[in-house]
Amino acid sequence: MDEFSFIRSIAPKVHRQSGLIKGIGDDTAVFRQPYQDIVTAVDTFVEGVHFTRKTMAPYHVGYRVLAANISDIAAMGGTPAFYMISIVIPEGWSEEDLASIYKGMDDLASLYHIDLIGGDTVSGKELSISVTIIGYVEQNKVRYRSHAREKDIVFATGTLGDASAGLDLLTNADSGRGLPEEARNYFIHRHRMPSPRVSFAKALHAAERVALNDISDGIANEAAEIAEASNVSLHLYDEQIPVHQSFKRFNREQQRKWKLFGGEDFELLGTIPERDWPIVLSAANKAMIPVAKIGVVTTPSSGAGNVVLHEGNRHTILDKAGYTHLK
Amino acid sequence: MDEFSFIRSIAPKVHRQSGLIKGIGDDTAVFRQPYQDIVTAVDTFVEGVHFTRKTMAPYHVGYRVLAANISDIAAMGGTPAFYMISIVIPEGWSEEDLASIYKGMDDLASLYHIDLIGGDTVSGKELSISVTIIGYVEQNKVRYRSHAREKDIVFATGTLGDASAGLDLLTNADSGRGLPEEARNYFIHRHRMPSPRVSFAKALHAAERVALNDISDGIANEAAEIAEASNVSLHLYDEQIPVHQSFKRFNREQQRKWKLFGGEDFELLGTIPERDWPIVLSAANKAMIPVAKIGVVTTPSSGAGNVVLHEGNRHTILDKAGYTHLK
Repeated sequence: MDEFSFIRSIAPKVHRQSGLIKGIGDDTAVFRQPYQDIVTAVDTFVEGVHFTRKTMAPYHVGYRVLAANISDIAAMGGTPAFYMISIVIPEGWSEEDLASIYKGMDDLASLYHIDLIGGDTVSGKELSISVTIIGYVEQNKVRYRSHAREKDIVFATGTLGDASAGLDLLTNADSGRGLPEEARNYFIHRHRMPSPRVSFAKALHAAERVALNDISDGIANEAAEIAEASNVSLHLYDEQIPVHQSFKRFNREQQRKWKLFGGEDFELLGTIPERDWPIVLSAANKAMIPVAKIGVVTTPSSGAGNVVLHEGNRHTILDKAGYTHLK
Repeated sequence: MDEFSFIRSIAPKVHRQSGLIKGIGDDTAVFRQPYQDIVTAVDTFVEGVHFTRKTMAPYHVGYRVLAANISDIAAMGGTPAFYMISIVIPEGWSEEDLASIYKGMDDLASLYHIDLIGGDTVSGKELSISVTIIGYVEQNKVRYRSHAREKDIVFATGTLGDASAGLDLLTNADSGRGLPEEARNYFIHRHRMPSPRVSFAKALHAAERVALNDISDGIANEAAEIAEASNVSLHLYDEQIPVHQSFKRFNREQQRKWKLFGGEDFELLGTIPERDWPIVLSAANKAMIPVAKIGVVTTPSSGAGNVVLHEGNRHTILDKAGYTHLK
């Protein structure tokens, strides 16, 4: 298959987005959106760095790569609309593998009503997939990290640490001894096929001000980004951080590491004025996902924004890299 | 330097585009453009496949990668506005090298008044740069490949084969014997630092209908894309294809190969009704580049769109891959 054939072969026959004027097939794609602002981001995933074929089939690779990008749009309160994929293909990946990667992306894109509008396929030494995501956001309803304010409550959607648990189950033969099959499959599914929280974030529409970040690099890191951007402190209460009912079957050290620093759950972390908590509950209800209050926002505790983790009577300052200083 | 530091370190301090609301520093960039349509494309360049350090310094790699993307916007008649870069970095590339790649991009971005609004930096085995370009285009003035019509004239900007000549000069010690230093430098410059024809394409504004393609893969291929998309035949007259005055110093076989099939000149190939030729001349004059009539459009010569090359009394049908069938 030559350089152009793959993207052509997967060019969608119909458009899902009414704003799309021209998809694949010319020098660029063309679209129109006169009433909303445009949000866009790019992420690159490299085999051996971000995923391995040991834990993911090509289908999962495609699904997860696009999920991570859609999650960025969710974290801005936006609606994903289009994506472009650029793939570096090494020898050893067959056309069937590539078709499976695309199928994983397209199945997810179909769920979110997103169009593939462009891409590039080149040969190289290692598999690398770069996804550009483009979406819309209502003007003045963008959910920036800098929106956290003193006295806000901090919330998180879903359950945390699941994707790390799933990865551990797939890579360590001893992992999760005695874990029921159903729970095992749940965690593995969360690693391979995460669900970006677009509908939840959009359902926060009635709230005037929300700070949002998607949990791609662990809640400690995401909280630190909000704290830094807003120049506040985020106090998180360990026992309130939501975990799956079977999560306690892993040892305490793993639980702590995965729920605080484990990435790729693609849940949302946010802050909102306390009076708007009912909006959060209603959004979670509408999106049919759990949501939990997990902390509060205060003025910066030591001059600069940071994250304070409360575990029982002890508190710890988490820095951005996940390194903890005991206090 | 960690994964995030590089993109942060190069995050622009000021915005060039008034429509940009949020650049680097959150989950996505945010921009607004209520009056024009959005055009976007992505291209990936891999070391060893698209470039080597033998012929390009890191600065040129950055410059050329972005030039190729801007050229796609030019080929739609659009104005580039934003770009995002995703880089896979192997060992052996230093921070200085990366800074040079960025400098090459930024110098070109500055010329075109474009903002860097996002990106990703990951480690891997081979250098791979993926650039997403986003621009604006006036509604109903998009220059599609499908716009060619019978009796249109075919034109090309600049001179063709230059980049291939430059690459040959850089890779073959015997190349261009006796070629004056100035001409040698010119061809090498055209290989390393191409000039996308944005201002020319925009200056065609007064023309109602233009088919445009940028010459990234050789004029034969680009002409075939227009012929196929418009279901017409493009007749090209060899002696009218514009070349640099020193181009004839290379042997005939090289000349033919480079001007017809040599890629990466990033000139524009177009078709337009004959009555609008003065608009083309005026646009070239405004953009201070040469333009040449090189052919005509006819109904498809054998049922489907194709390219017919006239060389003296002989004519040849060029297919898309550049393979020629003698007639």
